[in-house]
Amino acid sequence: MSSRYRVEYNLKVHKKDAFIEWIKGLLAVPFVLQAGTDSGAERTYKQYCSIFSDIENLVSQKIEIQNRRRQLGSLEEARLDQLVPQVGTFFTHLPLVEAFEVQNRRRAICSRKMVSPSFNDIRHILNSAQILALLKSKELKLVTFDGDVTLYEDGGSIERGGKIVTRIITLLKRGINVGVVTAAGYDDPDKYKERLYGLCFALFSDKSMSLEQKSKLTVMGGESNYLFQYFETSEQFGFKSIDDDEWVPSSVKAWSDDDIDATLDVAQTCFGELSHLLALPSKCQIIRKKRAVGFVPGFIFDDELEVNVKIKIPREALEEMVLVVQKKLESYPPAQNIQFSCFDGGSDVWCDIGGKDLGVSILQNFYQTDSPITAAQTLHIGDQFAPKGSANDFKARSAGCTLWISSPRETIEVLDDLLPYL
Amino acid sequence: MSSRYRVEYNLKVHKKDAFIEWIKGLLAVPFVLQAGTDSGAERTYKQYCSIFSDIENLVSQKIEIQNRRRQLGSLEEARLDQLVPQVGTFFTHLPLVEAFEVQNRRRAICSRKMVSPSFNDIRHILNSAQILALLKSKELKLVTFDGDVTLYEDGGSIERGGKIVTRIITLLKRGINVGVVTAAGYDDPDKYKERLYGLCFALFSDKSMSLEQKSKLTVMGGESNYLFQYFETSEQFGFKSIDDDEWVPSSVKAWSDDDIDATLDVAQTCFGELSHLLALPSKCQIIRKKRAVGFVPGFIFDDELEVNVKIKIPREALEEMVLVVQKKLESYPPAQNIQFSCFDGGSDVWCDIGGKDLGVSILQNFYQTDSPITAAQTLHIGDQFAPKGSANDFKARSAGCTLWISSPRETIEVLDDLLPYL
Amino acid sequence: MSSRYRVEYNLKVHKKDAFIEWIKGLLAVPFVLQAGTDSGAERTYKQYCSIFSDIENLVSQKIEIQNRRRQLGSLEEARLDQLVPQVGTFFTHLPLVEAFEVQNRRRAICSRKMVSPSFNDIRHILNSAQILALLKSKELKLVTFDGDVTLYEDGGSIERGGKIVTRIITLLKRGINVGVVTAAGYDDPDKYKERLYGLCFALFSDKSMSLEQKSKLTVMGGESNYLFQYFETSEQFGFKSIDDDEWVPSSVKAWSDDDIDATLDVAQTCFGELSHLLALPSKCQIIRKKRAVGFVPGFIFDDELEVNVKIKIPREALEEMVLVVQKKLESYPPAQNIQFSCFDGGSDVWCDIGGKDLGVSILQNFYQTDSPITAAQTLHIGDQFAPKGSANDFKARSAGCTLWISSPRETIEVLDDLLPYL
Amino acid sequence: MSSRYRVEYNLKVHKKDAFIEWIKGLLAVPFVLQAGTDSGAERTYKQYCSIFSDIENLVSQKIEIQNRRRQLGSLEEARLDQLVPQVGTFFTHLPLVEAFEVQNRRRAICSRKMVSPSFNDIRHILNSAQILALLKSKELKLVTFDGDVTLYEDGGSIERGGKIVTRIITLLKRGINVGVVTAAGYDDPDKYKERLYGLCFALFSDKSMSLEQKSKLTVMGGESNYLFQYFETSEQFGFKSIDDDEWVPSSVKAWSDDDIDATLDVAQTCFGELSHLLALPSKCQIIRKKRAVGFVPGFIFDDELEVNVKIKIPREALEEMVLVVQKKLESYPPAQNIQFSCFDGGSDVWCDIGGKDLGVSILQNFYQTDSPITAAQTLHIGDQFAPKGSANDFKARSAGCTLWISSPRETIEVLDDLLPYL
Repeated sequence: MSSRYRVEYNLKVHKKDAFIEWIKGLLAVPFVLQAGTDSGAERTYKQYCSIFSDIENLVSQKIEIQNRRRQLGSLEEARLDQLVPQVGTFFTHLPLVEAFEVQNRRRAICSRKMVSPSFNDIRHILNSAQILALLKSKELKLVTFDGDVTLYEDGGSIERGGKIVTRIITLLKRGINVGVVTAAGYDDPDKYKERLYGLCFALFSDKSMSLEQKSKLTVMGGESNYLFQYFETSEQFGFKSIDDDEWVPSSVKAWSDDDIDATLDVAQTCFGELSHLLALPSKCQIIRKKRAVGFVPGFIFDDELEVNVKIKIPREALEEMVLVVQKKLESYPPAQNIQFSCFDGGSDVWCDIGGKDLGVSILQNFYQTDSPITAAQTLHIGDQFAPKGSANDFKARSAGCTLWISSPRETIEVLDDLLPYL
Repeated sequence: MSSRYRVEYNLKVHKKDAFIEWIKGLLAVPFVLQAGTDSGAERTYKQYCSIFSDIENLVSQKIEIQNRRRQLGSLEEARLDQLVPQVGTFFTHLPLVEAFEVQNRRRAICSRKMVSPSFNDIRHILNSAQILALLKSKELKLVTFDGDVTLYEDGGSIERGGKIVTRIITLLKRGINVGVVTAAGYDDPDKYKERLYGLCFALFSDKSMSLEQKSKLTVMGGESNYLFQYFETSEQFGFKSIDDDEWVPSSVKAWSDDDIDATLDVAQTCFGELSHLLALPSKCQIIRKKRAVGFVPGFIFDDELEVNVKIKIPREALEEMVLVVQKKLESYPPAQNIQFSCFDGGSDVWCDIGGKDLGVSILQNFYQTDSPITAAQTLHIGDQFAPKGSANDFKARSAGCTLWISSPRETIEVLDDLLPYL
Repeated sequence: MSSRYRVEYNLKVHKKDAFIEWIKGLLAVPFVLQAGTDSGAERTYKQYCSIFSDIENLVSQKIEIQNRRRQLGSLEEARLDQLVPQVGTFFTHLPLVEAFEVQNRRRAICSRKMVSPSFNDIRHILNSAQILALLKSKELKLVTFDGDVTLYEDGGSIERGGKIVTRIITLLKRGINVGVVTAAGYDDPDKYKERLYGLCFALFSDKSMSLEQKSKLTVMGGESNYLFQYFETSEQFGFKSIDDDEWVPSSVKAWSDDDIDATLDVAQTCFGELSHLLALPSKCQIIRKKRAVGFVPGFIFDDELEVNVKIKIPREALEEMVLVVQKKLESYPPAQNIQFSCFDGGSDVWCDIGGKDLGVSILQNFYQTDSPITAAQTLHIGDQFAPKGSANDFKARSAGCTLWISSPRETIEVLDDLLPYL
Repeated sequence: MSSRYRVEYNLKVHKKDAFIEWIKGLLAVPFVLQAGTDSGAERTYKQYCSIFSDIENLVSQKIEIQNRRRQLGSLEEARLDQLVPQVGTFFTHLPLVEAFEVQNRRRAICSRKMVSPSFNDIRHILNSAQILALLKSKELKLVTFDGDVTLYEDGGSIERGGKIVTRIITLLKRGINVGVVTAAGYDDPDKYKERLYGLCFALFSDKSMSLEQKSKLTVMGGESNYLFQYFETSEQFGFKSIDDDEWVPSSVKAWSDDDIDATLDVAQTCFGELSHLLALPSKCQIIRKKRAVGFVPGFIFDDELEVNVKIKIPREALEEMVLVVQKKLESYPPAQNIQFSCFDGGSDVWCDIGGKDLGVSILQNFYQTDSPITAAQTLHIGDQFAPKGSANDFKARSAGCTLWISSPRETIEVLDDLLPYL
């Protein structure tokens, strides 16, 4: 073993998910010991099950202690919180052994001798466990989707005949509320109609569904800033804007415009300074909206190809922008009075007022104002769960159960696991 | 600091590049100390330069000791070899300070306060240093390209008017030999004509170049198994096959067909067993060629979309296949008598007889049979440099200088750094 | 690089000191780059100085932000707190460059080519920096010593003619208050007279000192539970007990006996259960005192040697006891109303009511009740600074400046650095 | 998780034992999962047993492959060698489960909830496994002991009535050959009689033993440079020197004095230069012997205490000396023709010609010249097994089975585990 000196610094949280990395470490042991031996696959299977069963117990213990702390002010600390301090909250027990069996049949994890259980293996297992838990609880009332990379490719939209359409319609037919909680922040509903056109058209064409079922489809734009609901008349269909009074929480109404503007001003100034400091092309633009400010790449004309080519901002520059703005606002007094969310959209950077946790909780109240839908009755499907400073779905974890997918194709797969047994 | 227990296992070499990771660790220190302070950028710049200057000296010391060991049998061990045992061989000194300055102007590395110098920053700096070294030596005689992801998108080809065309033609006009060393192993030259059509068509249309310049374009297919050279007549153009005697090294001729077949048989059997063991779709195919055997995904008909969709094999299964075959062949006697190369092509797995190191060295001899082109006169541009067991460009590092790119767009960028000063 | 899976668990804080480990990581870079080269020593020296100068600035920035947070409620976060979250509080600036030069002259750190700056090198540098800071501030008013391993060998005492005697007497003569803050918890002052006999005897014999100077010597027993002061008459000398009203803080007086007893009962029960669970020899004893409970090894008669031999409790069992008791009390309501301190004394385990931070702050008030001695005027010298769960000097860091020594010989060395320039 | 940049450098091998660290990592998983739960102890016990059983199998597989490689030239690579490349050779199977049960009864490893299995726990388990293996094989013929810290405290000797005496006499009575393989390199046998006096005196007083049994006691001084055997007459007893021809291997005889002197000259020069470079007290001495050269601390007169005090050389300086000399000799041609061993004796540094692996193998031949005692029949007990560059027992691992102890008390414990069942 070579001598190792670690320069640790906590300027930014490591992009890795602590809980998944921890499970990877646990599974590496039986893998290392048995995977290459003759009885390997069988014994590895048993030991993986045993480890997942132990983790199930640790999650259940954590939920019990969460409840005792909230209800009885107990000082107890769940063992899982000691083992993985960043693990966050669980809203349902997780049948991890059962989920592992499902994924092992698909991915033959135990049959591998050289590649130990990977990040993706475990991400899929956790997704399956969450689906199984919701099926067992029969409590699912609200499913929310991120837009880009979850419902459609980055910058794309739902086409007519897209596979996601039938799945969402099935959800609606089963009486499940469906919300699209997206960073895309248009205050014009038609923009969302464009991006969800395949779905809206199918809804409008489906004469078997009641209007009541159809109007369970909503869009929460700008993470938590604009609420639209599906509507249709005999000739028309699309999304209609919902009056603020019907959905904006009082706490949010209390946010002063000064604080909002001051916060967005700081973010905007930062984007300007950093654009210069990081020598980014002048064609990049700062877009200021009422409840958001963004730094977007813009286009450059390629003389050879005689086409406009999208500017590619280095990943490091995007991440620097998010972290600098995040840090600045964390110690900026006006920003403490409101909520904001900075994130790296993969090719641009945005600072939004509010956040997806707020967006999901608004929908929980909007659909059942008297007795809001609970976190255990809510499932958010998204692709941006890398920790602080670069992923906006991460916050949704505090508002409901989540599924971490990595492409629209995976969104179809998880829905096809859920729907037949819903 | 939490207690940390490491389960280290060496079943597979970590995908990270030890030399780049080491440099990342060195640069993290000045970043951590100055990056956030007022005089940060300036002092960080000086200290990064000082670190790169030290690494330059360590590289130069290593080259001197490499020479003394080879020429005088010295037992000395270069300090860089002690510091980074996996660092491999350097064929030229590396003007790293100058390269850092080039890349810092582009990527504003020193202006970042929250994101320390990244893997990509350093990869670009090493590329620039290698280009600068070759420009200074004025010794460049051979440039070889990987195909997929380097010259064109994965599975794509060079279109007419593609930006890469003018660059390669400029190389040829400057008398530089150009070889495409690709894993794609067709024994039919027309297949390569198809994939390089944009380039061939431009060559044929360019009446200013001599045939001698044009025929400096070759293709080394199947990594080191098929050699084709550009040809044209008044009406025709494309690639012609070169007679084995003109280029197959005697050492390779000495490989017995039995050993080759036995080796490919083992690989093929492995693919079959693993396809079953890893529960991969039956539509996946094993393709056996004279000098290679591959496991390719195949297609599945999607009833909903009514189209054939390419099967997606999980990354872990591909990596398992490569490592299992690699390990089996490493202790399989017949395979010791020949060279083989297993690699994960991103969506398929291949075991080729030979390898890119052999492919590049064959071209070095083919172009200058009397006094073969040396490693210091050769530049290989590819995208697959993750260490053993999954990347076929890694081997090319032992045959010549290399540039590690990650997309066809980056290939254009490095050529545009090289050509103006060649 | 081998693949590495880390099983991280935070049941116990790693025994390593995060700040020292962090500095080790920073210094490893110039060491790795220059140490072996010809100009190595000189350039390494410059770069170590540059790193220590940067750390100096980070410490100063942290002190300024500490003050702005306390005085102005600023939300700023010092960069050092981001880089090393566990770093704790600084009461004085630290002249680290000057301190490094002092230690480099002694330990020739820059002349080493194979062994990079070690934990001990940096511990000595930090000690020297703290001494230099106090000499510059001319503000030192109180020096407190741990007992075992600091003033005398473990279980030993100050003999007549011991080198520590002259040093402490010099401190007293300079008007510096001296307190021995020890875990040893006797309520009989004569026990401390026995363990500090060499010092008391020398004081009594020294007719040049005033009684006022001599009585600046105090003992804080049981970490913060018993206060004694040196006294002498023409015939007698030793320590006298100080009446509670003169020194016990009101906050401590407010601790109910029930909470104290309940807390010690839990600790005692734990010791009993664990002694059985960990299969420790029955001869081990649980000692219950008014303000402490301990688990001590006891003796076993060795038939062969015909002597009583002290039982050696494995380090792991001692550490388990401390961590289990610590964890239990952290969520035990009565214990939240008071202060307790569990620590591993090297061969036994104790749970004391109070702690060294309280002990030091009591002395700060006792000596200058009207305007208590501040943290920046206080220096605690001890050997137990490994973080939570096993070291009782660690807490003293919150009450004053500290020097981390590892033997009585090192205590002499640091005093000999301090006294000549006091 | 915080971002981590590792500055790895391989100037010196990490002091940690890779095999023990690896086992620690494996055991951390069941500990982390069960140790805190109600059924914890029981399930942890089962899973530790399962892990040790898997490691047993990996060791057995390695031994089989070791034999096939040696006897059949097989290219197979044992899985354990892939998992822990530094693991070295095993001469016997290791009943690790049984050994774990023995140590768990003593150290209650499974009952711990907060402290996972430690380095010492595993060191003891490996020792017990090696003892059990030798008892099962009934093949033990030779036991060799290191001197300092193993037979007696550092710098001490065996006193009359010492507990080690009866144990060694029991070994001799059972016909086991006993050799003391020590770095102490005197060519005068009486020096060893002094340090082993308690043992020699007891042998001489024991009229029940035959001279043949008694003379199975030998001393291998200077690691492998001087051989002495116990002798006694009616009045006299002690050690007699054995003529070179009876024991010096021909390979060692072939070492030229020039190479030996040249090698020791380089080491001596290094010591001189480093003593100056590392600013070590002038009273330190370089001691040159025929087959060794050492750097020893010497003494300084303490005016206050009026006694000579042994100079304490910082650990870092000792380690630097060992590594610099080691590295110099590794590329110094004359040193390649002989064997040398540099090590840090805790307070001094020595470079010996030969080494403990040679010393043990000389005894294996000396006792049974016709059919030398094999490695599987040999047990070396020592305290210096930290890898290369600082520990001389490490080399003995290549000559026979080993027990790693940390004090003379532990030597008694392992012998008391062995003798009753021998």
